[in-house]
Amino acid sequence: MIRVGILGATGYAGAELARILSGHPEVDLTLLTSRQYAGKGFDEIYPSMAGVVRLTCSPNEIDLICEKADVIFMALPHKIPMSIAPELIGRGKKVIDLSADFRFKNIEAYEAAYQPHTAKELTEEAVYGLCEIYHEEIKNARLVGNPGCYPTSILLPLVPLVAEGLVDHSTIVADAKSGVSGAGREATLTTHFCEVQESFKAYKVAVHRHNPEIEEVLSRVAGEPVTLTFVPHLVPMIRGMLSTIYVTVIAGAGLKEIRECLNDYYAPHPFVRIVAENLLPDTRNVRGTNFCDIGFRLDTRSNRLILISVIDNLVKGAAGQAVQNMNIMQGIEQTRGLFNTPFPV
Amino acid sequence: MIRVGILGATGYAGAELARILSGHPEVDLTLLTSRQYAGKGFDEIYPSMAGVVRLTCSPNEIDLICEKADVIFMALPHKIPMSIAPELIGRGKKVIDLSADFRFKNIEAYEAAYQPHTAKELTEEAVYGLCEIYHEEIKNARLVGNPGCYPTSILLPLVPLVAEGLVDHSTIVADAKSGVSGAGREATLTTHFCEVQESFKAYKVAVHRHNPEIEEVLSRVAGEPVTLTFVPHLVPMIRGMLSTIYVTVIAGAGLKEIRECLNDYYAPHPFVRIVAENLLPDTRNVRGTNFCDIGFRLDTRSNRLILISVIDNLVKGAAGQAVQNMNIMQGIEQTRGLFNTPFPV
Amino acid sequence: MIRVGILGATGYAGAELARILSGHPEVDLTLLTSRQYAGKGFDEIYPSMAGVVRLTCSPNEIDLICEKADVIFMALPHKIPMSIAPELIGRGKKVIDLSADFRFKNIEAYEAAYQPHTAKELTEEAVYGLCEIYHEEIKNARLVGNPGCYPTSILLPLVPLVAEGLVDHSTIVADAKSGVSGAGREATLTTHFCEVQESFKAYKVAVHRHNPEIEEVLSRVAGEPVTLTFVPHLVPMIRGMLSTIYVTVIAGAGLKEIRECLNDYYAPHPFVRIVAENLLPDTRNVRGTNFCDIGFRLDTRSNRLILISVIDNLVKGAAGQAVQNMNIMQGIEQTRGLFNTPFPV
Amino acid sequence: MIRVGILGATGYAGAELARILSGHPEVDLTLLTSRQYAGKGFDEIYPSMAGVVRLTCSPNEIDLICEKADVIFMALPHKIPMSIAPELIGRGKKVIDLSADFRFKNIEAYEAAYQPHTAKELTEEAVYGLCEIYHEEIKNARLVGNPGCYPTSILLPLVPLVAEGLVDHSTIVADAKSGVSGAGREATLTTHFCEVQESFKAYKVAVHRHNPEIEEVLSRVAGEPVTLTFVPHLVPMIRGMLSTIYVTVIAGAGLKEIRECLNDYYAPHPFVRIVAENLLPDTRNVRGTNFCDIGFRLDTRSNRLILISVIDNLVKGAAGQAVQNMNIMQGIEQTRGLFNTPFPV
Repeated sequence: MIRVGILGATGYAGAELARILSGHPEVDLTLLTSRQYAGKGFDEIYPSMAGVVRLTCSPNEIDLICEKADVIFMALPHKIPMSIAPELIGRGKKVIDLSADFRFKNIEAYEAAYQPHTAKELTEEAVYGLCEIYHEEIKNARLVGNPGCYPTSILLPLVPLVAEGLVDHSTIVADAKSGVSGAGREATLTTHFCEVQESFKAYKVAVHRHNPEIEEVLSRVAGEPVTLTFVPHLVPMIRGMLSTIYVTVIAGAGLKEIRECLNDYYAPHPFVRIVAENLLPDTRNVRGTNFCDIGFRLDTRSNRLILISVIDNLVKGAAGQAVQNMNIMQGIEQTRGLFNTPFPV
Repeated sequence: MIRVGILGATGYAGAELARILSGHPEVDLTLLTSRQYAGKGFDEIYPSMAGVVRLTCSPNEIDLICEKADVIFMALPHKIPMSIAPELIGRGKKVIDLSADFRFKNIEAYEAAYQPHTAKELTEEAVYGLCEIYHEEIKNARLVGNPGCYPTSILLPLVPLVAEGLVDHSTIVADAKSGVSGAGREATLTTHFCEVQESFKAYKVAVHRHNPEIEEVLSRVAGEPVTLTFVPHLVPMIRGMLSTIYVTVIAGAGLKEIRECLNDYYAPHPFVRIVAENLLPDTRNVRGTNFCDIGFRLDTRSNRLILISVIDNLVKGAAGQAVQNMNIMQGIEQTRGLFNTPFPV
Repeated sequence: MIRVGILGATGYAGAELARILSGHPEVDLTLLTSRQYAGKGFDEIYPSMAGVVRLTCSPNEIDLICEKADVIFMALPHKIPMSIAPELIGRGKKVIDLSADFRFKNIEAYEAAYQPHTAKELTEEAVYGLCEIYHEEIKNARLVGNPGCYPTSILLPLVPLVAEGLVDHSTIVADAKSGVSGAGREATLTTHFCEVQESFKAYKVAVHRHNPEIEEVLSRVAGEPVTLTFVPHLVPMIRGMLSTIYVTVIAGAGLKEIRECLNDYYAPHPFVRIVAENLLPDTRNVRGTNFCDIGFRLDTRSNRLILISVIDNLVKGAAGQAVQNMNIMQGIEQTRGLFNTPFPV
Repeated sequence: MIRVGILGATGYAGAELARILSGHPEVDLTLLTSRQYAGKGFDEIYPSMAGVVRLTCSPNEIDLICEKADVIFMALPHKIPMSIAPELIGRGKKVIDLSADFRFKNIEAYEAAYQPHTAKELTEEAVYGLCEIYHEEIKNARLVGNPGCYPTSILLPLVPLVAEGLVDHSTIVADAKSGVSGAGREATLTTHFCEVQESFKAYKVAVHRHNPEIEEVLSRVAGEPVTLTFVPHLVPMIRGMLSTIYVTVIAGAGLKEIRECLNDYYAPHPFVRIVAENLLPDTRNVRGTNFCDIGFRLDTRSNRLILISVIDNLVKGAAGQAVQNMNIMQGIEQTRGLFNTPFPV
């Protein structure tokens, strides 16, 4: 059994980690930390967990963490992870960070979007934990930067096609839509039920911090700088993310080549499902699961490919992919503890 | 491994059975039937199941059913189960019926609420599958009538108190509220999104067919006829049921006796959780799980007890309790395959 | 034209007042105050109002208020209104207060539920603004205490029957359900979209502050002390309130007498609609309107009457009734500016 | 007073027409027809209308229609309007058709997307009722083809910029999102609450029938053939439509020119609001109103303009614009009967 701790366990991503890890057959969940709720039972914060997760929240203390756990998930606000990670790594722990702190190789891009980086010595070693793409690198990682939810939903359909040169990567537009849980558990006017229900809106148009994260990965894959236009929207639902991606297809490539490329790339990876030709993805089909479903159509008049991907933003977009990273790092089957059957409704 | 078949697998209750049973460690799910979709892949009806449930829907043929499965779940419209069950039982199968056909001992009450009964010879033998209450009888049952969702949510809090004589069973009012999935998958104006969203209403006030079902069980427990006033309502959410039950407390009994009675009764039964004194049940705490959470308050001025229970209508109110019944019938731990961790949101 | 001001115009009730009054043909809306947003355009807070309500928020200053307006609506937190009202009344203004401060004649009951009362000299004069019940008193009022949303929905169906002696007023149970806007615009975990969506729960069981308000009115009508058991619930929708009320009918009275009593009582009052016999009220039928729809059924086995009423909690439950009060106080037709056609969906 | 009839009054668009027209100060609503509900009171179909709209549904008979009304709104399924319109026009009536039958000048495009056209003699005369764009033509029209909801939301932001030559009209991508009421009142699995709630999906990707409608108008404005890529999505809400439109800006044009162009174009038209620079449109800001709100951002790295527009699909996207057309045809102020104050929530 792997002894596992979750730092920041009472936010939505942290609690989702607790959900998945408490049922993982190879995990001994030993530690949940929370600055705000230290000393309280986890099931006082989440009464759904009564009788299921019986831990008390601990403070975020390094010695305690190192004593209790060997694999550590950090579901903390950006900036805190980079202040803790060096010590944890130094003491031989494996770390999976759900913040943006270790997602970037390009520190300037990170610092432009976030703040000064205080653990630059670790960014080169850190592996970008997009499991299906960086599977090999993750195997030997000590430190994984778990991808953002938008980047996950946009990169999974694009990377194989960009790698194969089937699309013109200078023409990418990504129109993405997310459920409200992506905004976290903090009570704000933006997440007030009466402001969200019966409402649909765009936000951070073309300036979202996930933009440079996506571009860094696409540039690495393409071997040259890639920029894209990225617009996120808020959907009145708890979970789910759908990205509609527009990109021009290279002359000569058609639906057949696109399908083959995606099918081949994802054949070894059961969490990515290329949907049947007559279907289109729907966020409800992946709700509560670690799946990413991908479908597509070609607008033949403009030769514009329309890729559509769906994930559960809290699972494949956060906690589920984090556990998948742990599985790969520990040499376990990547689906272990994660392959729950989806809800029909 | 138990070979299991689901008749009527494409309705919501049937599909929920498929969800639970496909992940059950002691079950080999061998058969899904559907009149409407026979010949189609189950994942064509529920694309969420792609790569997870790989069965094709079969027609509802007795020989096929008996060849493929040893335990049979029937998620069929009322009336059909009683035409099939005698043959299945006769051929040595164990049957769990999710319809009302085998819930009643009082055939007159059944026929008044539903239609003429055509398999009366089996109703005496059939066991009412309210797991925590009829645990012993279920162990040896060949045929279980799985309780309705409303009866489950109303009987679990009431039965121990009525049995113990702590409440005046002539004063019961049950005000119940259900999510929309309880109405099934059929497309009707009543389940149209635009008619349900931003709407709340009562229906079948004091004439719902679950009324006599509840009364039959309460009367058996009380040892004399019990009637109650029961009003169901429709909540704009997919899953979840909450019942608010009003009943006068017997002189001398107070909160302490109520809590002890419920705690004692349910101590051996992990799926019923008596919530902490400072909390009240919320349907989201049991969503996607087989839990029934119960809380209560006493209006001391009127000596009226207010019991509040919540279940997921598709799990403890249907498919989950059906699988719990199977576990008990097969001598397996009752939580086997059912004890998933709840979602935090 | 009546010069009207709204104190506390940026909360949900205040903004709903602004919506109604800005379209009222006899009103000149001259003043909106807001402590938090003073100096900002009202349409900066509510962008929906761009081009429609062109006022800038002012601070809550007595001189300014008295200079600008002759009728003043107070949509302020409890306690503040009683500190302002005496001055406004003293300077000849008419005041409609949406808080609880002037709803009670029984000051002890008020102080037990809220806080010490600092303007007791006005409570005797203040009229309880339940328009259809206290129509005559309201005509000459200088100060109206606008009823709470729960009391409105519970009193309108009960008052005629209690007055007429058709029901046993010692047996009342009121099970009420409200949309989320009743909790106001403040961002709290309780109103967070992810905590409300796909959730249903009870709160403040038998201890809600609207309980004594309802009892004071019923006692006045009955001519003796009345207590009731009152349990509020939260529905995942923005607007709407449904109350299911259980009460034993007096021997000899039946559905015919109930219907006649309600029909007669509300014949002069177009905002109360007794629904057709074959129908039941639905909150969507009154959404965005000042209607209260009432339906009922009799459980003949127990002689228990089940009354069901629906209102829009922000309209008939708050701002709409407040404007109706103004109309009556000003001698205008009570439906003036309020009789908008309901939305079909 | 204008005598007005609505054909097909019980669908969502027809009922929304009834809502608006029953409160229109210059309209005498004399006729509601319904094939399905002829003979029934309109308030039996929509109980919200009890006491407000007192008409009984009539059958769809030409003589009756011509006798009762002078202006006729047709909210009927495509194909029926073109079989009725010639007779109505011939008898001197003014007709506003909400179907697609009279939206096209290019009959081939119509027939490819819909079916053979049987009233081609009228298509040349019919005016495309996009009020702010074809204001002058509408004034003298006898027959108006009321625009589709998606075309309205996509054309309003684009037309001024294409007309002015500020954008490269060969680069348009329109990613649109609609509430469920756009699918109509028919009960289907697609509109089942449990299939829509907590779900987000695309449909009819690049093949929606509104595509050629949009292209015909843009081509007329541009003076040369324009094609665009158009992808609609379904949002779990009743009302509202948001379109995110991506188009490359012509060299030399910037945010200032874009804003001036839109501001100038819509200065005379109060129903189109260009939102403040620091804001973005939200469907809730236009819910229940005839407004179209437009905002935009420029992705300077790619010179790609991102236009965002919102409408209420049942109002500006259907019934509201239809009434606006009637106002213009009758020489009434275009906002008459339509300028209701928006709901704050």
